Amino acid sequence: MASEFERIARLETIFGPPPPAVSLGIGDDAAVLDAHALSTLGARLVWTVDSCVEDVHFRRELIGWFDLGWKSFMAAASDIAAMGATPLGALCALCLPPGFPEPDVDRIAAGQAAAAAAIGTAVIGGNLSRAREVSLSTTLLGTCSNAPRRDGARPGELLVAAGPIGLAATGLRALLDRSPAPGTERAVDAWRRPIARISDGLLLAQSATAMIDISDGLAQDAAHLARASRVRIDLDPAALVTSELHEVCAQLGLDPLSMALGGGEDYALIATVPVGSSPEGTRVIGRVTEGDGVWLDGRRLAATGFDHFREG
Amino acid sequence: MASEFERIARLETIFGPPPPAVSLGIGDDAAVLDAHALSTLGARLVWTVDSCVEDVHFRRELIGWFDLGWKSFMAAASDIAAMGATPLGALCALCLPPGFPEPDVDRIAAGQAAAAAAIGTAVIGGNLSRAREVSLSTTLLGTCSNAPRRDGARPGELLVAAGPIGLAATGLRALLDRSPAPGTERAVDAWRRPIARISDGLLLAQSATAMIDISDGLAQDAAHLARASRVRIDLDPAALVTSELHEVCAQLGLDPLSMALGGGEDYALIATVPVGSSPEGTRVIGRVTEGDGVWLDGRRLAATGFDHFREG
Repeated sequence: MASEFERIARLETIFGPPPPAVSLGIGDDAAVLDAHALSTLGARLVWTVDSCVEDVHFRRELIGWFDLGWKSFMAAASDIAAMGATPLGALCALCLPPGFPEPDVDRIAAGQAAAAAAIGTAVIGGNLSRAREVSLSTTLLGTCSNAPRRDGARPGELLVAAGPIGLAATGLRALLDRSPAPGTERAVDAWRRPIARISDGLLLAQSATAMIDISDGLAQDAAHLARASRVRIDLDPAALVTSELHEVCAQLGLDPLSMALGGGEDYALIATVPVGSSPEGTRVIGRVTEGDGVWLDGRRLAATGFDHFREG
Repeated sequence: MASEFERIARLETIFGPPPPAVSLGIGDDAAVLDAHALSTLGARLVWTVDSCVEDVHFRRELIGWFDLGWKSFMAAASDIAAMGATPLGALCALCLPPGFPEPDVDRIAAGQAAAAAAIGTAVIGGNLSRAREVSLSTTLLGTCSNAPRRDGARPGELLVAAGPIGLAATGLRALLDRSPAPGTERAVDAWRRPIARISDGLLLAQSATAMIDISDGLAQDAAHLARASRVRIDLDPAALVTSELHEVCAQLGLDPLSMALGGGEDYALIATVPVGSSPEGTRVIGRVTEGDGVWLDGRRLAATGFDHFREG
């Protein structure tokens, strides 16, 4: 087994040099960023942490180590997107069982590095620890000019979405049910290699009164937004099921509307915007009215979200 | 079992209102800080993450949940102290087994909140996840004007220390060997309730050419500093064993010098300073010369650090 020192030296190579605003990256007690440089990037700093735990968020037989590094990174970065922010850098805490193979450590790190690069940022530090199960905690900083919260939605506004909804959970079902059937690759990819929608978040932040990312499922995450804003959200069933989701669900014998409402881990963004302000590339999936809860065809939805491997 | 929503509402009460530079705390996708306010607090932002894992860093029978929250928080905050920084806020990711009692969740959070308050900061967000084992990952931001790195030590300088060295590991040995013997309470407390030495770090940063905190043991952490700075460090054995450490070790039949060299989790700070610049409240424990490695009485020390429950 490599020493922690050797591991850190290898990880430093994999993660590469830190971004410009970072004056000290991997290898000291803490990463150091230039506060003045940050304040020129945006008036606000947003900060999030997210954990990805073995047998809760993933199973080894369903995802490779590179993809796990990618997916766990994007899940955390999605919270930066949901605040309309641009990522500055990330710290990754890796908890790994004794004897975990060094090449697999490098594969996780390569997936994290690739995900970071894909959204224009980098891993600038972290922590290594032993543990019985694999878990990855990723913390990111980002900058933005105004961060849309969850509590700004007002009656009369539209609910818009950027990104697929229900596709990742359908991909996971394909993986759990059988070896991936033809036509499900795109859905499996949505689960294994999600994207934090940074550009969409920046665009949506210009008109959004409230915004959230879909990590636990549309019904549940829309309920968070409705509760925080003290409004009612009426979803449009026709707009929720895309032709892509319809086709994959047909292949697997699943109800696409259920997958769209209950499926998590898409990391799509949903936002409320005034009528006439839907940004290009987004689609209207509902309306904000007075009241409370999330409704579909006149029925109030239970806010039961996606529970990974407990999904029925 | 409480819903995640209920848990978060309780945690929000326990953690209290966010500090002034924080414009949005618990309950949204990410915490939001005012970048301009930060840049007035210090030219640099330091950022760290640390994990505390069951059966690696603690065992349930050795520490209560409140103390675990405290200890894990201080372990992470110690990296902020080692950069000569003042903490701004923290995010805490809690991974807990299904059915983990709600009052114990609150006890962990109360310990984190108390530790944060003790060093003038607060928990402003985090993440909740299921897991097989309890693990806590804590990320902190801090501000400073200049952050002493590990690589600035120069021959001719002194190595100084602030805080007890070897006491926490001796306390852990007391807990592992038997029910705490009389006279070991202070050592047990050093292990269960360590302090991140923020004030000492600020003071040391004024003259330190290099600084690090002792988490893995003096021999190992001094070796990190010597390696990064490309210097040799000669430790003074007479200065390493305080009368307090001597007495507790006598009580337990342990060699105090071994405990001082190999024992971790004290979160003392060590720093190199020019001769004549030792800050008040610190003690000289060694000298920097040309060469490499960490030496004691003419023998080079193996850089074997503290490995928690593997300690021989």
